[in-house]
Amino acid sequence: MAVKVGILGTGVVGQTLAGKLTELGYPVTIGTRDVSKTMANTDRNPYGGAPFAEWHKQYGQVKLGTFAEAARFGDIIFICTNGAATLDALKQAKPDNFKGKTVVDISNPLDFSRGMPPSLFPQWVNTNSLGEEIQKALPGANVVKSLNIVNCEVMVNPRKSNGDPTMFVAGNDAKAKDEVKEILKQFGWTDIIDLGDISGARGMEMVLPFWLRIWGATKNGYFGFKIVR
Amino acid sequence: MAVKVGILGTGVVGQTLAGKLTELGYPVTIGTRDVSKTMANTDRNPYGGAPFAEWHKQYGQVKLGTFAEAARFGDIIFICTNGAATLDALKQAKPDNFKGKTVVDISNPLDFSRGMPPSLFPQWVNTNSLGEEIQKALPGANVVKSLNIVNCEVMVNPRKSNGDPTMFVAGNDAKAKDEVKEILKQFGWTDIIDLGDISGARGMEMVLPFWLRIWGATKNGYFGFKIVR
Repeated sequence: MAVKVGILGTGVVGQTLAGKLTELGYPVTIGTRDVSKTMANTDRNPYGGAPFAEWHKQYGQVKLGTFAEAARFGDIIFICTNGAATLDALKQAKPDNFKGKTVVDISNPLDFSRGMPPSLFPQWVNTNSLGEEIQKALPGANVVKSLNIVNCEVMVNPRKSNGDPTMFVAGNDAKAKDEVKEILKQFGWTDIIDLGDISGARGMEMVLPFWLRIWGATKNGYFGFKIVR
Repeated sequence: MAVKVGILGTGVVGQTLAGKLTELGYPVTIGTRDVSKTMANTDRNPYGGAPFAEWHKQYGQVKLGTFAEAARFGDIIFICTNGAATLDALKQAKPDNFKGKTVVDISNPLDFSRGMPPSLFPQWVNTNSLGEEIQKALPGANVVKSLNIVNCEVMVNPRKSNGDPTMFVAGNDAKAKDEVKEILKQFGWTDIIDLGDISGARGMEMVLPFWLRIWGATKNGYFGFKIVR
């Protein structure tokens, strides 16, 4: 039986992941805080994504549910919520629904309260990370940080960067990292470096301010980091 | 007349830069806190560098002086001191000696006090950077952050990474950045991205925890970041 995927977050990252995983044959349930509000929303995403209902017309086989329904559905769960809302979304999703499962944390602790470009939330930077906080919030799950260092279209199609960039995984459980690497390969990633335990999320999240400046300098979000070695 | 180079810091980074710049034909004075102590030191550098006096036998044309003498000598000055000691070294070097000059900041705010791998000093991370503090300490100079994101042998020879990685500059003065880019090209860098003003140092310094984890995972310090785009 196919591995089932739960996705938390209906923004452009969640949509892009849900679309690609559906194309790859995975049954997907995507979760949101408030289903009727998500379906009624007509605002275009600030990053150019479609309102959910419009996107959903193309991907009718993706089930929409609450955070808890998506978490319960998935054998593997992708966290695609915005950083500030992530820990609250996990509470709503109920940590019991993640027990024994692999959780791919794609979120970034971006703090927009100090203007643009955003910095990272001080409580989750340098000597801590959002990835580690997520692992603490879901003690029964195996959290793997990955994919957060590129634009979501590059996440599911690294060749969109016009090259073969490097991807990373960090997490405490080797088997969970292997599962994630398998999906990364299906997305097209050929060069994957394992950064060790979940504290490797610190480095992966701290790349974001660098990413944002490179984006600003090159006016191009479709890039990746290749570790030349 | 050849552009004269002052280098602050006699450790392996300062030695490597001084050696390469000498080979390129630049007159170099390298500065230290205490000249007689530096010459008497016989400890091998923890990163494998030679004691200064031993290194100096191969590069006799490099003059050794105090921080102030090196800063006064240079038309362009490279900061190769360790992050924790940098602001104090600049005081000793006397800010007046930097007036109107280009200053290349290679230092990293690495905090070893919380164990290994190091984190970054909390006062210089995320919403601030050591590069910005250096610019504040040297208001008459044009500080350019560069080179801090790779091992010193890769700094002066990017091909040591077995590829063609990307280098970055960040600073407030366009002319100073052009001067630095010219030297980077002489080192062999062919792909250089300008990250804008000196606040771009935040991203460049925040890459260090990522660098350290990649080094730990690959057991190879001779790598660079190629921005695939």
